[in-house]
Amino acid sequence: MPEYPTSIGTSTPDSISLLGHDLASELLGQISFGELAYWLATKRRPTPGQLRMFEAVLVSLADHGFTPTAIAARLTYYSAPDSLQGAIAAGLLGGGSRFLGVTEDTGRYLHDAVATFGDTEAWTDADWDDAALVVLRKGKAAGAKVPGLGHPVHKQGDPRTPVMFALAEETGMKGPHLRLFEAIGRVHPEVLGRTLPLNGAGVAGAALADAGLPIDLLRGFALLARTAGLIGHLAEERETPIGPTVYAEVDRNARYTSPDVTGG
Amino acid sequence: MPEYPTSIGTSTPDSISLLGHDLASELLGQISFGELAYWLATKRRPTPGQLRMFEAVLVSLADHGFTPTAIAARLTYYSAPDSLQGAIAAGLLGGGSRFLGVTEDTGRYLHDAVATFGDTEAWTDADWDDAALVVLRKGKAAGAKVPGLGHPVHKQGDPRTPVMFALAEETGMKGPHLRLFEAIGRVHPEVLGRTLPLNGAGVAGAALADAGLPIDLLRGFALLARTAGLIGHLAEERETPIGPTVYAEVDRNARYTSPDVTGG
Amino acid sequence: MPEYPTSIGTSTPDSISLLGHDLASELLGQISFGELAYWLATKRRPTPGQLRMFEAVLVSLADHGFTPTAIAARLTYYSAPDSLQGAIAAGLLGGGSRFLGVTEDTGRYLHDAVATFGDTEAWTDADWDDAALVVLRKGKAAGAKVPGLGHPVHKQGDPRTPVMFALAEETGMKGPHLRLFEAIGRVHPEVLGRTLPLNGAGVAGAALADAGLPIDLLRGFALLARTAGLIGHLAEERETPIGPTVYAEVDRNARYTSPDVTGG
Amino acid sequence: MPEYPTSIGTSTPDSISLLGHDLASELLGQISFGELAYWLATKRRPTPGQLRMFEAVLVSLADHGFTPTAIAARLTYYSAPDSLQGAIAAGLLGGGSRFLGVTEDTGRYLHDAVATFGDTEAWTDADWDDAALVVLRKGKAAGAKVPGLGHPVHKQGDPRTPVMFALAEETGMKGPHLRLFEAIGRVHPEVLGRTLPLNGAGVAGAALADAGLPIDLLRGFALLARTAGLIGHLAEERETPIGPTVYAEVDRNARYTSPDVTGG
Repeated sequence: MPEYPTSIGTSTPDSISLLGHDLASELLGQISFGELAYWLATKRRPTPGQLRMFEAVLVSLADHGFTPTAIAARLTYYSAPDSLQGAIAAGLLGGGSRFLGVTEDTGRYLHDAVATFGDTEAWTDADWDDAALVVLRKGKAAGAKVPGLGHPVHKQGDPRTPVMFALAEETGMKGPHLRLFEAIGRVHPEVLGRTLPLNGAGVAGAALADAGLPIDLLRGFALLARTAGLIGHLAEERETPIGPTVYAEVDRNARYTSPDVTGG
Repeated sequence: MPEYPTSIGTSTPDSISLLGHDLASELLGQISFGELAYWLATKRRPTPGQLRMFEAVLVSLADHGFTPTAIAARLTYYSAPDSLQGAIAAGLLGGGSRFLGVTEDTGRYLHDAVATFGDTEAWTDADWDDAALVVLRKGKAAGAKVPGLGHPVHKQGDPRTPVMFALAEETGMKGPHLRLFEAIGRVHPEVLGRTLPLNGAGVAGAALADAGLPIDLLRGFALLARTAGLIGHLAEERETPIGPTVYAEVDRNARYTSPDVTGG
Repeated sequence: MPEYPTSIGTSTPDSISLLGHDLASELLGQISFGELAYWLATKRRPTPGQLRMFEAVLVSLADHGFTPTAIAARLTYYSAPDSLQGAIAAGLLGGGSRFLGVTEDTGRYLHDAVATFGDTEAWTDADWDDAALVVLRKGKAAGAKVPGLGHPVHKQGDPRTPVMFALAEETGMKGPHLRLFEAIGRVHPEVLGRTLPLNGAGVAGAALADAGLPIDLLRGFALLARTAGLIGHLAEERETPIGPTVYAEVDRNARYTSPDVTGG
Repeated sequence: MPEYPTSIGTSTPDSISLLGHDLASELLGQISFGELAYWLATKRRPTPGQLRMFEAVLVSLADHGFTPTAIAARLTYYSAPDSLQGAIAAGLLGGGSRFLGVTEDTGRYLHDAVATFGDTEAWTDADWDDAALVVLRKGKAAGAKVPGLGHPVHKQGDPRTPVMFALAEETGMKGPHLRLFEAIGRVHPEVLGRTLPLNGAGVAGAALADAGLPIDLLRGFALLARTAGLIGHLAEERETPIGPTVYAEVDRNARYTSPDVTGG
């Protein structure tokens, strides 16, 4: 007989078990949705500090206004209002390398670097600065970009960044990923020859890594956060739609040029 | 010039505004992800009671084990491990009438009934029972099914149901939708001739309605909750995959019969 | 043991059977993709007339320029260029009631009417006109819209319509659905008080029904046709992208108004 | 004013232009759906040979039985029967690196090799064998896998392969990609030390490249082909569903083990 292993949950006619706990008597009304999301992804209950950081990251990533993915979701809802799930799915499908990738790319970049450091427990800021210089120089020699550095709008500093660092300090969650990222923020002008802000989406990746979330699923948390944002956009699309205007504007300003049809 | 109205958020080079508040100084680290999700969907900040119920509902809906949608997400991840967003989207696309519909259908059913009642502020349980009888009889005459009544596994009672009612009582959030659903739970044997449990997913719909969430988006909250569950399933699929076994089993037990090919 | 029945195909180490035929020796290079698509959907090989109409319908539905679904697919590709399947899926998800629904709605409307007619083999155009009047009057009394009537751009006549009717005549495929739709085109001014063109997407629905395709899957053929169109749009997006401009324009013309935040 | 360039199509109140041709008078009923799909993707009308190969490839890729993607589509349809587009989209979302990747990977592998060869017009089979040996040895030294070599079921030879080569010969479409792949089929035992069949999905990639389709969109054609297969599966799912059985079997054979809950 085939077997389908799982540790997520199971149920009997009179009980539902989730993550080794009784859903009704131990979880419902007692943990936040964010806590459950963390727990489901890791099979570990977060510490208060981990949870605080995780919820803050989700809040920071939930919405970025009229992103291409929000517009795609609204256009899909306009075309197929009978399928809310389709509109949300369409919005999430844009969660790839270009727009949601910063969080994941930064987390992985820092993770790969930190993995080579050995014990950093006693490192001072100066030690982190030295390490950051090594990482940045190695990357520069290889022609690699530093993910999470720079922001198209917040050129003088992403307002989320200092708040997330302060929160990590306060909760005791400033681990090696945030420390290295912070050091990169301090020393990169020396290597790159110009000063760039630490992107809030990059800080999110570092914070998730320090909060114990798996590197390979960082994109997933950005998608979870974005699901809440997409519901907000679709709720607003019901009241003050932009889909019809986007469509009309693209159609109106279409510039048709005949294809160079070979053999046509 | 076209205009694209929005009240969700806006940003300047040095600030990000979300829902009329400064993201960095007023929201980050200060509200839970669940609170933000509520706020985004309604443009209203939830009261503590509303938030408590909303988070409890999300927790109750996040995972139901190996549902068809969880299996579909895992199979998609197995086929296309390079696109986490595709696997999550595939899982959400099953969030339609059959599997995620109970929450929405129950909420709407109760909402439509409640809308006909006038002021129910002073109603006693007996008043609600009378109203429930009227609703059930009218539905029976029309041959309509009562959504949210009955559960394929929890035949003697869904363990989530009493906890959700107790929580609503405790938080002062037992409004007309939950009251009517509770009354339906009491009186339906008289009309239907058999006793069925109140489904937890149905209670979720009633609770969301009483917590002030828009009826037309109830499915969206089930989808948000399920996104967390799907991330859990995909995290587990990375460790102990079931996709290959599902595929092998279906393939191995395929029973091929020749089509009746006309003109073939 | 569970059994998974199928008549689509099966394979052994040295052969592949599809629809009861040997793929390699009987199908490859011998049937068109359109013929296979028809055959897969119906388990019947199409007659030459059915195939000709089916391919014509697919050609007529493949592309409609910068539709909301094409724009959504392009925006998704812009956000996640690493997942072509995600961009195509996002485009298809808009294939719901509003934009791709005309084909399906018209097919079903005609099908439901035709099902009440009995044997129409010997009907003359005058008989069809009488039947159309009855159908239209019944619909008007019930306040129902006639699907497939009218077009936002082609107000004086959809250029696809006469060609599709001529093709159906030529191939002997003008069955009851097209005949009734044609009659509706003749007599509706008498009932509705104004003259509207027969929409090409509606004709497509009637033609698919007459060509023997299942009514419940008509939307599927519109989606198949649209997949080819979406690939065209994504190929073009690689060369001359519009995604970044759509995003920039919406962002630039966003009009932010503060939400009425209760308790915020 | 923004401009949205396109050469796909345009329309006026009384005409529709597609790819520089009048849809109604020049295309409808005159070209196959396969021809239009080729044309849309390349902006070039295919030659008869290119079209014959393109349609044959689509036929060869349309269905592979109960693949993970077909099962995912069926499960999604079972959960959300109200959204055919969602079920098709879910099926396509599995069209990633593992299951639909062979066509794309093989095409790109051959394309990259061929690009280094210069003029191969006058090459004999012996020349191609020499070239294949160089390519294979270079790949072996780099530890790279040869895509399109080997098949899990058709271990002694994929039945599609010889037919596709014969068809390419017959239509004059055996270009450098197919020739190199054929040579790899002849000489790889010398380098790899074992004999593997040329996979039909790999041949499809080579054939598409020789037929002039863009390498970067090869996955798209596999997805187009698969859309027809998915419609076949969903049509069958309506008649003889497997979704409920897959669900029941996974649920029945779930093996629950308690998570190692830290701090839980």
